[in-house]
Amino acid sequence: MLRALETVVGPGHVVTDPDILAGRAVDYTGRYRGRAGALVRPGSAEEVAAVLRVCRDAGAHVTVQGGRTSLVAGTVPEHDDVLLSTERLRALGDVDTLERRVQAGAGATLAAVQHAGAAAGLVFGVDLAARDTATVGGMASTNAGGLRTVRYGNMGEQVLGLQVALPDGSLLRRHSLVRSDNTGYDLPALFVGAEGTLGVITALDLRLHPTPSHRVTAVCGFADLEALVAAGRMFRDVDGIAALELIDGRAGALIRQHLGVAVPVDGDWMLLVELAADHDQSDRLADLLDGVQLCGEPAVGVDVAARQRLWQVRESLAEVLGSYGPPLKFDVSLPLSAIAGFARDAVALLGTHAPDALPLLFGHVGEGNLHLNVLRCPVEREQAVYGPMMELIAGCGGNVSSEHGVGSRKRPYLGMSREPADIAAMRAVKAALDPTGYLNAAVLFV
Amino acid sequence: MLRALETVVGPGHVVTDPDILAGRAVDYTGRYRGRAGALVRPGSAEEVAAVLRVCRDAGAHVTVQGGRTSLVAGTVPEHDDVLLSTERLRALGDVDTLERRVQAGAGATLAAVQHAGAAAGLVFGVDLAARDTATVGGMASTNAGGLRTVRYGNMGEQVLGLQVALPDGSLLRRHSLVRSDNTGYDLPALFVGAEGTLGVITALDLRLHPTPSHRVTAVCGFADLEALVAAGRMFRDVDGIAALELIDGRAGALIRQHLGVAVPVDGDWMLLVELAADHDQSDRLADLLDGVQLCGEPAVGVDVAARQRLWQVRESLAEVLGSYGPPLKFDVSLPLSAIAGFARDAVALLGTHAPDALPLLFGHVGEGNLHLNVLRCPVEREQAVYGPMMELIAGCGGNVSSEHGVGSRKRPYLGMSREPADIAAMRAVKAALDPTGYLNAAVLFV
Ligand SMILES: Cc1cc2nc3c(=O)[nH]c(=O)nc-3n(C[C@H](O)[C@H](O)[C@H](O)COP(=O)(O)OP(=O)(O)OC[C@H]3O[C@@H](n4cnc5c(N)ncnc54)[C@H](O)[C@@H]3O)c2cc1C
Ligand SMILES: Cc1cc2nc3c(=O)[nH]c(=O)nc-3n(C[C@H](O)[C@H](O)[C@H](O)COP(=O)(O)OP(=O)(O)OC[C@H]3O[C@@H](n4cnc5c(N)ncnc54)[C@H](O)[C@@H]3O)c2cc1C
Repeated sequence: MLRALETVVGPGHVVTDPDILAGRAVDYTGRYRGRAGALVRPGSAEEVAAVLRVCRDAGAHVTVQGGRTSLVAGTVPEHDDVLLSTERLRALGDVDTLERRVQAGAGATLAAVQHAGAAAGLVFGVDLAARDTATVGGMASTNAGGLRTVRYGNMGEQVLGLQVALPDGSLLRRHSLVRSDNTGYDLPALFVGAEGTLGVITALDLRLHPTPSHRVTAVCGFADLEALVAAGRMFRDVDGIAALELIDGRAGALIRQHLGVAVPVDGDWMLLVELAADHDQSDRLADLLDGVQLCGEPAVGVDVAARQRLWQVRESLAEVLGSYGPPLKFDVSLPLSAIAGFARDAVALLGTHAPDALPLLFGHVGEGNLHLNVLRCPVEREQAVYGPMMELIAGCGGNVSSEHGVGSRKRPYLGMSREPADIAAMRAVKAALDPTGYLNAAVLFV
Repeated sequence: MLRALETVVGPGHVVTDPDILAGRAVDYTGRYRGRAGALVRPGSAEEVAAVLRVCRDAGAHVTVQGGRTSLVAGTVPEHDDVLLSTERLRALGDVDTLERRVQAGAGATLAAVQHAGAAAGLVFGVDLAARDTATVGGMASTNAGGLRTVRYGNMGEQVLGLQVALPDGSLLRRHSLVRSDNTGYDLPALFVGAEGTLGVITALDLRLHPTPSHRVTAVCGFADLEALVAAGRMFRDVDGIAALELIDGRAGALIRQHLGVAVPVDGDWMLLVELAADHDQSDRLADLLDGVQLCGEPAVGVDVAARQRLWQVRESLAEVLGSYGPPLKFDVSLPLSAIAGFARDAVALLGTHAPDALPLLFGHVGEGNLHLNVLRCPVEREQAVYGPMMELIAGCGGNVSSEHGVGSRKRPYLGMSREPADIAAMRAVKAALDPTGYLNAAVLFV
């Protein structure tokens, strides 16, 4: 099989060095590790399709790898897999400013797409902290959300067309020049969020948005979570809302301590809110904030430098959290009415099972999307915490994955968010496209 | 089989009266007619599932009927089908104003959902002229667009969850309390736009939107289509855009003549534009119109009565066109750069094949969605015109269906908008869920 793969992609692009493979078989956080047989780097959609044919015929398992920033161990192989990396599929087409779109290879990073859009005066609708590494193919496969979902929706809402190599080795191209298109099944919507189980995305037509000419950003402090959620609910419905980030107040102290970054407000909870539009928003934001029960004065920024200082509070979180070792991460969604109660119950649950842990709550509060990051949770306590936490979330009417996907980490809990008939229909679709189940076998289904 | 169906739904809800069946076997325009064996009206999701089981076991074909306003003959049975009507599935749940959503039976009309939303201070994101008859189940099945797509997207973007009776007689429920949800395949997105070929939608969780407190509407005249498209492109990207309707100037004369409705502007082409936001928009609209090359003065309305008078120009079109007999309708989408050229070529094409016909062009111009309505086109000329028109559209890089779907009318042309591997994947999904192909056999696939 390795010989056949070399024939497809060239000898330099089939890697079997055990050290490299070991580095590729582990997840972003270093918590989860698998086993890989080879790493293959196809250079075109046709090569991807041919690699799939070779592996299927040889009975090998394939795991697809994009930027490997998955936070649910989505790229960890379990069967001595062939790792199919999209790193060479990085081409970016010209931006079409009239139809506001750009074609990107699956391996292009989010940052590359953002820059191409910006150079043409347009913005891409998804932003997340892993922007320099995460690929648009991986982001489509996980239907990634992030910092701008409250305004533009998730990755799926940016995908106008896809090219996909199917498990049978054929190449599907759904490429429409116009957004408006009701000619048959919306297959792109099926591959979006399928986490690579139905095919390998090789290229994407991506939507771009007009660039708002005015932005205003504020960080506000709140005495309690109920008040913050109420403010979040109000801002979610406001014209021009562009970001709505919940930040745990205790993270403020950590940021100050670790990075020396000044955190501009007090309060146990912080909300970063941004408005963006084609006309000035400062007065509107001030009016809106007047109606909200804040803890102290909000910090407001209008010019780029001032806004960047406020965003730094949010953007520096990953670094600060990382300094405690890989945090245990829960990405979940909850009805707005359940958030405050969940936060209390989650702290109590951790108190029982991992008393030394430090839970910090963040989130894209506009969508009810919470990120609970647990610092100092010993690896051996993880199993005791994970299941009960998922049960708590399901019991609150929430979803066990809000934006990161299911990956291999959350497979056991899929049934908490989806009913048996629903999973059966998913399996029927999987079996129709991948009858032997060799593609991304470790993710989604138990 | 009829006995078994009566056991499921009760004798009063299995209809075999030939007159009623004949009335149900014809499409909205009266142009296309089929043959039905029975009409069944299940009263619950469980009954729908049981009806499907009975029909599948009996080897009968089933055609699903909602409001029967399909403009592509999507409800016309071809095999002495059992017609499965959703007319009894009309229940509406309470509006959840916090999560902004409502649950609706598939047979609820668009107008009923709009009213329920309005009563709770919210708006539903889709509006179209057939609102009193079209059902939300039919609209989801065709991924209907309409007058508000430029702002809120199509029907698919309003669907948060679905209950679907599958061809195997099982009931799939995808019902998430929170919008943010990345737990596995987005099956609702697959049933949306599937035109009833993959299952019968029995209930929907629908998204609602905040009601903008300020609206301003204008109708503007343009000397040529290029100028109108350029203005449309500019308005498409403007904050608060709420409607962007292209109206053929010649329709103005017909409206005056038939209905006595005053048409407020001159010009060969008219554009209805509406802005809506939570603060006053009149000055912004005036500023934006100042930058546009208009033909004469625009007519602008701010209060409800004035705005309604302007909307009447758009809303009265169906009645006026209908007075010429059923128009031949083409619903297509085109890249903005191709619209003016297409309009010229389409007129020339009709001049050759149906010289007495009167072509009128309308459309949701924000999405490049055009509706070409051909009046006075004799039924016997239809075949000569249809294929060449589809070829013209495909040649311009457009899609043969923009929002009405494929139905049975456009089946022969699906291959103009979708590639073979793409259609093969669609068929694989269809075969996985409906192996005998008994559900909506007349639509989508040849
Ligand atoms: C610091 C940090 C911040 C983050 N913030 C966010 C956030 O705000 N919102 C959010 O949603 N996520 C966030 N994530 C998670 C992660 O960035 C996303 O899940 C992202 O979409 C993964 O992209 P990737 O290219 O790294 O994919 P990978 O991790 O390589 O792969 C993800 C999954 O998709 C599959 N896959 C990858 N490429 C393809 C392809 N071309 N075709 C088919 N399947 C493929 C893989 O097999 C795997 O199952 C964050 C991660 C980090 C490290
Ligand atoms: C005056 C007028 C104006 C219109 N304007 C627009 C417009 O602006 N935009 C637009 O997109 N369309 C428009 N249409 C077309 C039509 O209204 C839409 O296609 C609408 O979605 C059809 O809804 P319905 O309930 O009438 O469905 P039907 O016509 O009954 O069915 C449509 C298709 O869906 C299937 N179906 C119906 N219900 C279900 C269900 N519960 N589960 C599974 N399959 C089902 C049917 O089998 C059929 O294939 C217009 C039609 C008219 C007559």
